Amino acid sequence: MSGIGIIGSGVAGLHLGLLLRQHDVPVTIYSEKSAEQLAGGRLPNSVAHHNTTVLRERALGVEHWDLQEYGYFCHHHYLGGPHPLRFPGSFEAPSRAIDYRIYLPKLLEDYQERGGEFQVRPIQAADILPLSEKHDLVVVGTGKGSMGAMFPRIAAKSPYDAPQRKLCVGLYHGIVRSEPRGVTMSVSPGHGELLEIPMYSFEGHVTALLFENVPGGDLEVLANARYDEDPAAFEKLVLEKTQQHHPTVFERIDPARFRLTRPEDLLQGAVVPTVREDYVRLPNGRYTIAVGDVHTVVDPVIGQGANSASYSAWELGHAIVEDPNFDERFCRKVARRRRDRVHSISDWTNLMIQTPPPPHLLELFGAMAENPAIADEFTNNFNFPERQWDILATPERARKFLARHGR
Amino acid sequence: MSGIGIIGSGVAGLHLGLLLRQHDVPVTIYSEKSAEQLAGGRLPNSVAHHNTTVLRERALGVEHWDLQEYGYFCHHHYLGGPHPLRFPGSFEAPSRAIDYRIYLPKLLEDYQERGGEFQVRPIQAADILPLSEKHDLVVVGTGKGSMGAMFPRIAAKSPYDAPQRKLCVGLYHGIVRSEPRGVTMSVSPGHGELLEIPMYSFEGHVTALLFENVPGGDLEVLANARYDEDPAAFEKLVLEKTQQHHPTVFERIDPARFRLTRPEDLLQGAVVPTVREDYVRLPNGRYTIAVGDVHTVVDPVIGQGANSASYSAWELGHAIVEDPNFDERFCRKVARRRRDRVHSISDWTNLMIQTPPPPHLLELFGAMAENPAIADEFTNNFNFPERQWDILATPERARKFLARHGR
Repeated sequence: MSGIGIIGSGVAGLHLGLLLRQHDVPVTIYSEKSAEQLAGGRLPNSVAHHNTTVLRERALGVEHWDLQEYGYFCHHHYLGGPHPLRFPGSFEAPSRAIDYRIYLPKLLEDYQERGGEFQVRPIQAADILPLSEKHDLVVVGTGKGSMGAMFPRIAAKSPYDAPQRKLCVGLYHGIVRSEPRGVTMSVSPGHGELLEIPMYSFEGHVTALLFENVPGGDLEVLANARYDEDPAAFEKLVLEKTQQHHPTVFERIDPARFRLTRPEDLLQGAVVPTVREDYVRLPNGRYTIAVGDVHTVVDPVIGQGANSASYSAWELGHAIVEDPNFDERFCRKVARRRRDRVHSISDWTNLMIQTPPPPHLLELFGAMAENPAIADEFTNNFNFPERQWDILATPERARKFLARHGR
Repeated sequence: MSGIGIIGSGVAGLHLGLLLRQHDVPVTIYSEKSAEQLAGGRLPNSVAHHNTTVLRERALGVEHWDLQEYGYFCHHHYLGGPHPLRFPGSFEAPSRAIDYRIYLPKLLEDYQERGGEFQVRPIQAADILPLSEKHDLVVVGTGKGSMGAMFPRIAAKSPYDAPQRKLCVGLYHGIVRSEPRGVTMSVSPGHGELLEIPMYSFEGHVTALLFENVPGGDLEVLANARYDEDPAAFEKLVLEKTQQHHPTVFERIDPARFRLTRPEDLLQGAVVPTVREDYVRLPNGRYTIAVGDVHTVVDPVIGQGANSASYSAWELGHAIVEDPNFDERFCRKVARRRRDRVHSISDWTNLMIQTPPPPHLLELFGAMAENPAIADEFTNNFNFPERQWDILATPERARKFLARHGR
């Protein structure tokens, strides 16, 4: 037996591997991609790390990107409609978005320097059983391929059978950063959201535009338009739709300089939000635990996926160090410890993509526009999703929250 | 609506009430006994507060009994049989046992001085619904009367249908304290345990003898003998049985001075260990939460009941302060937060009263007798029952624990 086997070299796998190496636990990460392949290829996402995740990076000794230069400090909200609302909300401590094609290889290097084993090898669900005989515990940290099917979907936590947004995310030049530097969250009622994210990538400080488009709405076309067939037409379409639906972003775009950074810096697609069981018992009586996307898939609309994966890995890693007995008691403990945050992220995200939006969410936005303290609390809770869900879980809770703020 | 209603003035109700008053939350405790009645009557139990509970008392500002004078510092173990084992185990910080007829009225006084409401009034299950209309939340902190039936028994966590020990606990003069001052845990295989506890009561520093007698064994008679019919014969019986089964306690008894402190300082009975659901939804849609004995009843053999109740109240109290939205999300949060410790206490206790004892428990005792570090860890874990259960939950876990200690 040789320590912990981790399937997947995403943020969950790497944060877990780094944490375990800090405690001298032997670890092997199995990845279908080499370091070079992680650094290349198509834009994988546009994730932000909120400060609670940054603090974990700091504790792991992998905080390579200074927050003053690479971070951002607030959300700029825009809610369109006949009476548009526009208001900021501040974090108590900054967030940060780094292109994962830079981030993951750098952390992989840290991990290997610290004695972590790394094997490039595609792993399928059928490989988990033999690996479980080789390792004290196998952690599944990738939802790719057949893995997801290993962990039963929890229907009560998975309200949608189909994607609620069609996604189009790309990295762009030609957008002046907001002041103070922040993420703009722009809502075009009935059509979807645009998240404009200051991101660091291969071409330096660029801007991610993540269009979250309601199926059947005016913006869905963005998820289907083909950049490679006609780059100029694609960029023109993005510009037009931004002007029409997301004016507070458009007003900072210089149309003459506006362009996708590189052809591969574009990702189109969609996800079905899904919550799965935390662990399964294998035919040999051993257990395997899910972490990250294979455990919960959330729509990227509030940028919580990576934070959920990192948090989940963190709780799992500490449990491994404290109680290295990988039986059902262990699995239940891990599930119990991470449940409130991980499920809150999923529940909150699913509420945000409900169509039409629930009245209490709109009421909350109205209050945020008038009361900066409410907007700041909502914004800072991107670090504490379980507190956000304490506010949003029911209309009664939202009402009590607003009453606490004197409304 | 007026704050929190608590049914019961036991340790759970009072610790919860005191915590809430520290945060200026309005509280009403309903008790079937007045302060005078709490101070009078028959010995209610012989509970010890381990140091984690003492720390909560300190935080509540109700630590009236200095640990150097009233506390104890270790366990003295004796395991009888053909090759008796005798060994100590030390706490990192002291425990303390105060007669609850002194303890509870003193804390009730603190509670009332701090603005807590106190109503002497018997409450039945049928009263919970109207009280739930009066308070923001009703907490049930007594298992007396019809209350238990409100919260469904969890069969998977309640392995016994009948008492596993017949109890006889009394306060005695004439026993020299152990050195260092500690609780003696003496086991007479097949017949039961004796816990000898240095306790503070109305007659000063006295000794509680808690006989835990296996039904059908030679000691069961202690649970049925009638002190009031013939005090001298009762005391003679206790002496004889102690001499025969629990020699390391007997050797510190001065038979000439040995006597029950007062006729009411004796309690005989038995409990059926039971774990119940954390909360129930009332017909009006509101929720009520169980704490203490109405939530879990444990045999007193390892002195965890009061610690479980206090811990449970503590977690509940903090949840009330943090998130005063008393819906199902709240109840689940409370359940999740306290589950590991509360259920570990129950599982561990149920293992200790298994007849015959499981082999891995006997193996652990054997190892404790030879290795003080193991005995100390086991003893200190009376403060951290979830860690104890990490060791004891399965034979594999016990084996790994002993391997960690080089065995």
